[in-house]
Amino acid sequence: MYVAKSPLSDADQKTVSEALQGALVDLVDLSLVAKQVHWNVIGPRFRSVHLQLDEVVDTARQHSDTVAERASTLGVSPDGRAATVAQSSGIGKVSEGWIKDSDAIGVLVDALGAVITRFRERIDATGEADPVSQDIFIGITADLEKHHWMFQAENG
Amino acid sequence: MYVAKSPLSDADQKTVSEALQGALVDLVDLSLVAKQVHWNVIGPRFRSVHLQLDEVVDTARQHSDTVAERASTLGVSPDGRAATVAQSSGIGKVSEGWIKDSDAIGVLVDALGAVITRFRERIDATGEADPVSQDIFIGITADLEKHHWMFQAENG
Amino acid sequence: MYVAKSPLSDADQKTVSEALQGALVDLVDLSLVAKQVHWNVIGPRFRSVHLQLDEVVDTARQHSDTVAERASTLGVSPDGRAATVAQSSGIGKVSEGWIKDSDAIGVLVDALGAVITRFRERIDATGEADPVSQDIFIGITADLEKHHWMFQAENG
Amino acid sequence: MYVAKSPLSDADQKTVSEALQGALVDLVDLSLVAKQVHWNVIGPRFRSVHLQLDEVVDTARQHSDTVAERASTLGVSPDGRAATVAQSSGIGKVSEGWIKDSDAIGVLVDALGAVITRFRERIDATGEADPVSQDIFIGITADLEKHHWMFQAENG
Amino acid sequence: MYVAKSPLSDADQKTVSEALQGALVDLVDLSLVAKQVHWNVIGPRFRSVHLQLDEVVDTARQHSDTVAERASTLGVSPDGRAATVAQSSGIGKVSEGWIKDSDAIGVLVDALGAVITRFRERIDATGEADPVSQDIFIGITADLEKHHWMFQAENG
Amino acid sequence: MYVAKSPLSDADQKTVSEALQGALVDLVDLSLVAKQVHWNVIGPRFRSVHLQLDEVVDTARQHSDTVAERASTLGVSPDGRAATVAQSSGIGKVSEGWIKDSDAIGVLVDALGAVITRFRERIDATGEADPVSQDIFIGITADLEKHHWMFQAENG
Amino acid sequence: MYVAKSPLSDADQKTVSEALQGALVDLVDLSLVAKQVHWNVIGPRFRSVHLQLDEVVDTARQHSDTVAERASTLGVSPDGRAATVAQSSGIGKVSEGWIKDSDAIGVLVDALGAVITRFRERIDATGEADPVSQDIFIGITADLEKHHWMFQAENG
Amino acid sequence: MYVAKSPLSDADQKTVSEALQGALVDLVDLSLVAKQVHWNVIGPRFRSVHLQLDEVVDTARQHSDTVAERASTLGVSPDGRAATVAQSSGIGKVSEGWIKDSDAIGVLVDALGAVITRFRERIDATGEADPVSQDIFIGITADLEKHHWMFQAENG
Amino acid sequence: MYVAKSPLSDADQKTVSEALQGALVDLVDLSLVAKQVHWNVIGPRFRSVHLQLDEVVDTARQHSDTVAERASTLGVSPDGRAATVAQSSGIGKVSEGWIKDSDAIGVLVDALGAVITRFRERIDATGEADPVSQDIFIGITADLEKHHWMFQAENG
Amino acid sequence: MYVAKSPLSDADQKTVSEALQGALVDLVDLSLVAKQVHWNVIGPRFRSVHLQLDEVVDTARQHSDTVAERASTLGVSPDGRAATVAQSSGIGKVSEGWIKDSDAIGVLVDALGAVITRFRERIDATGEADPVSQDIFIGITADLEKHHWMFQAENG
Amino acid sequence: MYVAKSPLSDADQKTVSEALQGALVDLVDLSLVAKQVHWNVIGPRFRSVHLQLDEVVDTARQHSDTVAERASTLGVSPDGRAATVAQSSGIGKVSEGWIKDSDAIGVLVDALGAVITRFRERIDATGEADPVSQDIFIGITADLEKHHWMFQAENG
Amino acid sequence: MYVAKSPLSDADQKTVSEALQGALVDLVDLSLVAKQVHWNVIGPRFRSVHLQLDEVVDTARQHSDTVAERASTLGVSPDGRAATVAQSSGIGKVSEGWIKDSDAIGVLVDALGAVITRFRERIDATGEADPVSQDIFIGITADLEKHHWMFQAENG
Repeated sequence: MYVAKSPLSDADQKTVSEALQGALVDLVDLSLVAKQVHWNVIGPRFRSVHLQLDEVVDTARQHSDTVAERASTLGVSPDGRAATVAQSSGIGKVSEGWIKDSDAIGVLVDALGAVITRFRERIDATGEADPVSQDIFIGITADLEKHHWMFQAENG
Repeated sequence: MYVAKSPLSDADQKTVSEALQGALVDLVDLSLVAKQVHWNVIGPRFRSVHLQLDEVVDTARQHSDTVAERASTLGVSPDGRAATVAQSSGIGKVSEGWIKDSDAIGVLVDALGAVITRFRERIDATGEADPVSQDIFIGITADLEKHHWMFQAENG
Repeated sequence: MYVAKSPLSDADQKTVSEALQGALVDLVDLSLVAKQVHWNVIGPRFRSVHLQLDEVVDTARQHSDTVAERASTLGVSPDGRAATVAQSSGIGKVSEGWIKDSDAIGVLVDALGAVITRFRERIDATGEADPVSQDIFIGITADLEKHHWMFQAENG
Repeated sequence: MYVAKSPLSDADQKTVSEALQGALVDLVDLSLVAKQVHWNVIGPRFRSVHLQLDEVVDTARQHSDTVAERASTLGVSPDGRAATVAQSSGIGKVSEGWIKDSDAIGVLVDALGAVITRFRERIDATGEADPVSQDIFIGITADLEKHHWMFQAENG
Repeated sequence: MYVAKSPLSDADQKTVSEALQGALVDLVDLSLVAKQVHWNVIGPRFRSVHLQLDEVVDTARQHSDTVAERASTLGVSPDGRAATVAQSSGIGKVSEGWIKDSDAIGVLVDALGAVITRFRERIDATGEADPVSQDIFIGITADLEKHHWMFQAENG
Repeated sequence: MYVAKSPLSDADQKTVSEALQGALVDLVDLSLVAKQVHWNVIGPRFRSVHLQLDEVVDTARQHSDTVAERASTLGVSPDGRAATVAQSSGIGKVSEGWIKDSDAIGVLVDALGAVITRFRERIDATGEADPVSQDIFIGITADLEKHHWMFQAENG
Repeated sequence: MYVAKSPLSDADQKTVSEALQGALVDLVDLSLVAKQVHWNVIGPRFRSVHLQLDEVVDTARQHSDTVAERASTLGVSPDGRAATVAQSSGIGKVSEGWIKDSDAIGVLVDALGAVITRFRERIDATGEADPVSQDIFIGITADLEKHHWMFQAENG
Repeated sequence: MYVAKSPLSDADQKTVSEALQGALVDLVDLSLVAKQVHWNVIGPRFRSVHLQLDEVVDTARQHSDTVAERASTLGVSPDGRAATVAQSSGIGKVSEGWIKDSDAIGVLVDALGAVITRFRERIDATGEADPVSQDIFIGITADLEKHHWMFQAENG
Repeated sequence: MYVAKSPLSDADQKTVSEALQGALVDLVDLSLVAKQVHWNVIGPRFRSVHLQLDEVVDTARQHSDTVAERASTLGVSPDGRAATVAQSSGIGKVSEGWIKDSDAIGVLVDALGAVITRFRERIDATGEADPVSQDIFIGITADLEKHHWMFQAENG
Repeated sequence: MYVAKSPLSDADQKTVSEALQGALVDLVDLSLVAKQVHWNVIGPRFRSVHLQLDEVVDTARQHSDTVAERASTLGVSPDGRAATVAQSSGIGKVSEGWIKDSDAIGVLVDALGAVITRFRERIDATGEADPVSQDIFIGITADLEKHHWMFQAENG
Repeated sequence: MYVAKSPLSDADQKTVSEALQGALVDLVDLSLVAKQVHWNVIGPRFRSVHLQLDEVVDTARQHSDTVAERASTLGVSPDGRAATVAQSSGIGKVSEGWIKDSDAIGVLVDALGAVITRFRERIDATGEADPVSQDIFIGITADLEKHHWMFQAENG
Repeated sequence: MYVAKSPLSDADQKTVSEALQGALVDLVDLSLVAKQVHWNVIGPRFRSVHLQLDEVVDTARQHSDTVAERASTLGVSPDGRAATVAQSSGIGKVSEGWIKDSDAIGVLVDALGAVITRFRERIDATGEADPVSQDIFIGITADLEKHHWMFQAENG
């Protein structure tokens, strides 16, 4: 049976792998939610929001790959399957159908806010256990918070 | 309430929108399945399969955007949310954990095979109703079948 | 006298060449109308609409070249001169002077709608006569309908 | 009603706006004429002339955008619609149908010659009124005269 | 023994695979013929024809790859070996030695004409059997006919 | 002591160097003001204005370098230090804190308007003294006036 | 009134926002100082120092944008106006006029040294309050210290 | 009759032209053989061999152009037609149908080995007659031998 | 004598400089070892491993430059000479001659494992002394551990 | 006999053509002189001066093409042959052999100074006769004077 | 006095330096002659010859730099000044004024022929003395002879 | 046991493989020495020498790969391990610590001089045995001697 060599103790490994798996699910769902709104948004700000959402998708896809491969690097099998994402994502369910642009911005402010809170917890949880994973969480959080600001500013 | 002007009759609209929604779910799930295997594959052919899977991901992501926006174009709200994908995808569930490279290839042969069968049906169903959507399905099928060949050839 | 060899029968040639000439005029006019609004639009959404219109111009210019050269390929001289465009375009006349951004969007929804209707007819008319030209019309229609959706969504 | 702030006096504004509107029409028509010949040219030099004409199209399209946006910048609504171009262009009407390559070169020598004469007049007319617009006319004239030389040299 | 899963019935498979194998041979030979003339052309139009032929080579090489891989995709082994090409190409034999530029253009007009006729037959033959392969033939035919026009126009 | 050779007479040198120094201060301040608003803008048009402002920053930074190096070229030491900019800029003080998008547009309309007036004066002042510097001022003015139009059109 | 949601406590918010505002002012001034010397340096090493300074400008401009947007992200309005920079920068005043290349290097060694000292303090101050901002300060400090080394080495 | 001026004596011309014609045939056939295997290879190493073969195709196509144009440069008409290649290639016939990856590697080891032997003879034969052509053969041999190593190493 | 100004205390300086010098030697040796195996690997997976190793070389070369210049930045002369590397590298000696691909993977698993252990120690050692250097070590470790995973997965 | 149509009167034509021919000779010689020094410079500043000179060469080559083609555009045959350049250049003869870096800078200061003086005269002479050519001279002078400053600053 | 260390004996040095100086003069003159004809060519093939000549200019400029720097590398001061080129070039004087396209081709056939003859002698002369310089001459000759073929073929 | 097929006789193989192994060691060491000085150089010319050395590193790394793979191509295992380099390099030991810029140039003049002497011997030794390898040595020597000139010129 395949066992990759982890540089971490068992306890640290457990802490970090839970954080990474949680991050993976959040980021995959963020990419799906952002695409869902990208396709369904309507209203005067359609074009602006439509384009802005693809930048969120890019961020979410790139970082989901990073955290999944970080899990594999630590010898932990990552799980980014649709059912897993549907069950354990930190983002509330997005309603179906067309979305007014102002509502779309609200959906993203909430989704990003929920994910950021969980990422902040992951930063706190992993600093002792694995500064390498923590540094990855810090970098992702910086990007997510920047997106969060921009959507909030549009409601300003 | 928002109603985009569709160039199709109601009956054709129904036929085509079901085909597009089905295609969207299949392609989003294909992108998630291919990423799942991309992260979990092990074995002597790891690197080759790992890289090959990202090409499937690129194909699936690009075409899922095309079919979702085609639905919006016809005035039909597309649904690519995680729960929808988990419930209605045409791809069988991928088991969790590490996957031997030869098994990984089998997973993709099966997943692509299942999706292709459904796309062939969509080509047949939509030719009369909307040749523009049919042409999109034909182009996607060509790409999926090419990936299918390559994974089969690796088992040859 | 120059006669290029056409792969089509005389009847098919006539059908297809009328479709191509009509498409050429519509697309040249679409490029001129989109530029006219690009220069004259005002209002809070100026920048967004201004940029969006140049994407319509790119689509229209690229496809007008394709249909004109397709006509030449079939041995039919294409006519894209200003007077011809002014007389036979399928797009209603755009009024002169500054255009409010919401009106600008309406102008494009109408212009694209008119052109799309005629392109759908060309797809139907040419399938038997020349599947190569039909395939070109299908591809152009896909692009035009996507632009149409986006402008409609902005009114959503 | 929308009034953009012009840095010019009323008299200068009138002088410059007439020059810009005239330049716009000439350049749009030049782009349409050059495309018309690009599609209809035949003869041993077909390929060379076909490619050369697309360089004229690029020049004409780029500069037509510049002069139209310069008009908007001065608070004057530009008019580049097909009917306006057909009525007020400084270029003589191009005959329909195939054009021998040597005739094609003659058409361009004449069209460029006519446009250049009018641009030289615009340079003279606008120097006092608005050196910024004059500088734009000077730069465009340099490009048009270079194209003019090349077509003349081909008749040399 | 290796058997790739084909989405086609046996009869359709036979129809399509013959069309693909024929297309492969024609396109490989077209690439060789165009290179042969590219190297042997002489006369005042040497440079223009020399460059134009490399564009034909690019088209032929790219599409030969597409049809060969399409055959593999359907589970049919493609054959593009020199002897096969020499025996079954649809292009008449090109004579050895230097070729005057006007003769070179004639060689290409004939070669492209012969290949186009066979591609038109393939479009007709495969529409029922496999719309995916048909769509590939349609796209290739559009490119070949465009090249055909350009060489004819040079004789105009 | 370092003295670069100037091609101008002493009187002309004085005229031109004052114009260049003034232009430098205006352009550096314009870049700082545009960045300030870029960071502080809020409201529905946040994203559009945020992006538009970075294009003003690019224009201002690039041209400030041009005028400063032009001063050095004429043997005059340019001064673009923060205190100098704060004291002698032609742009009125921007208030601190968040700025509503419509106010942000007003700030830019005013700032660009003030700078343009001074640049127009520099064009007049330097034509006799140094046509090379004048030509630089003309080119910068064209860019500034184009930005000015766009912000005005957004208030249209 | 606009209030963006900050992930930090009030005390942490205050600590971090002071650090970010200070960093913004230092970096904007560094970009102005480096440009000032870029334009005024003379002496045998002119070209080398002139080019090297633009790399400092790039670093300072890029990072000033990062810290200003980080402030906005935390709900704190950043202030990078010329007067603010002139009053609160950590860099000593640069004297006006031409600067010998060896003196120019000394100016940069001092300016970078002063800024680095303050950044080191910001790293210490913010680690507890906001590891995301701290990580940004660490990255900037690495770049500033590398520039510092290079100017020192030139005095070596 | 067309005679290009050769810098070589008649005897040297004969030696070099035979070498170039032989090289041309070998390289064209190598490109066809490598493509044939590229399409027909199966087995676990499919993807790796498939990609590797396209690098051989690139090498062979690029160098076949070089040697053919070198022949033309020396006034000798090159012959790269399919029948000529089929008759005089130095590469043994490749069998039709699917090829196991390990056999594919063997085919390339043999094909490259046969071509290299003949190129080594051409290097020896042409050094006196034409050092320019010899230098071309040396460069091509370096590339072919590098490919040869890589395929041998895969059997190692 | 040259003394660069270090922002660190003497004790911290000593701690960090030892860590940087050790990292430099490890990374230079890793680049040499990876190249050695890149050239000497044989076996069915030759191509895959050969390419993978150059990615390790890129990582090692880029990071060796970073740590060496970080040492210089802190005023410590780095030593990356061959003899120093040969004596103090943390990687065990690689045997000479050809290396089977499976052995090659083992060599890299061991080499990367040894280097990672030492980098983890450097992260621990430098956090207090210099968070800037620690951040560099964290980033390098992330890259090394990712490579480590991939080679382990190939043995999976 | 070939006569291109000039937009200028005979007197203006004479004035402008003399200015253009003089500019052509000066710029070709400047490119040759700068290359001569580029190859022969020695001394501690070798690398800096060597690179700087190639930027002068680029400027001189690009502008020599512009003025020569401007002459052709006006129907005047330009003369840039070596003997013409050797006889009528405005640059004093450069001595043969190695050149110390400080002397090299002096050579360029003198050469650029001489050419600039003549370009200033051309600006004055052509403003009435042909503002298009004058604008070209103004643009070239700006570039030459910038190079002049840089070489002077190196002596500062 | 500056003496660079040459790897050659005095006799070899003399042989090689004469060859390099001669090559430099020929190549600089070739670049000037090709530009002269580039500007002065007229006739139906104007565009084709005009573009082709700039490829000769590129070849000549690039190789003139190579041979001049090779001379410097061997410690020999190269001389590429206008007067030197005018006096010692191997290319016959080109007549002034407009040149018909067919004459232009003849001028290049002659110029390239003359230069090639001298390069062939340089290849023979330097093989023993310096194989490095000989290899440079061989590479340049290959390029010159290819250009020579193309111009000859245009007269074919 | 792995034996690659060499095109050389045993004696030639021995000659060439010794030359290649020697070249490999010299070039790897040159890359390490140039990096060592790149990091440790100080003095007024720091930046110029620092950048120049990275060009030497690029040359040395690229060519070391070429000679190592050439050895593998001939069936000879190359050895570029640190200990081998430390023991058998042709470059004298570089002293540790900071290096004044003028000394740095001296180090490179000596290192390059030593390596060039050995490469010249390899050119002589391998011409008969393997002209392909000899051609590689000739090309490398040209690059090394050019670097050698530049460092010498800086001492001129």
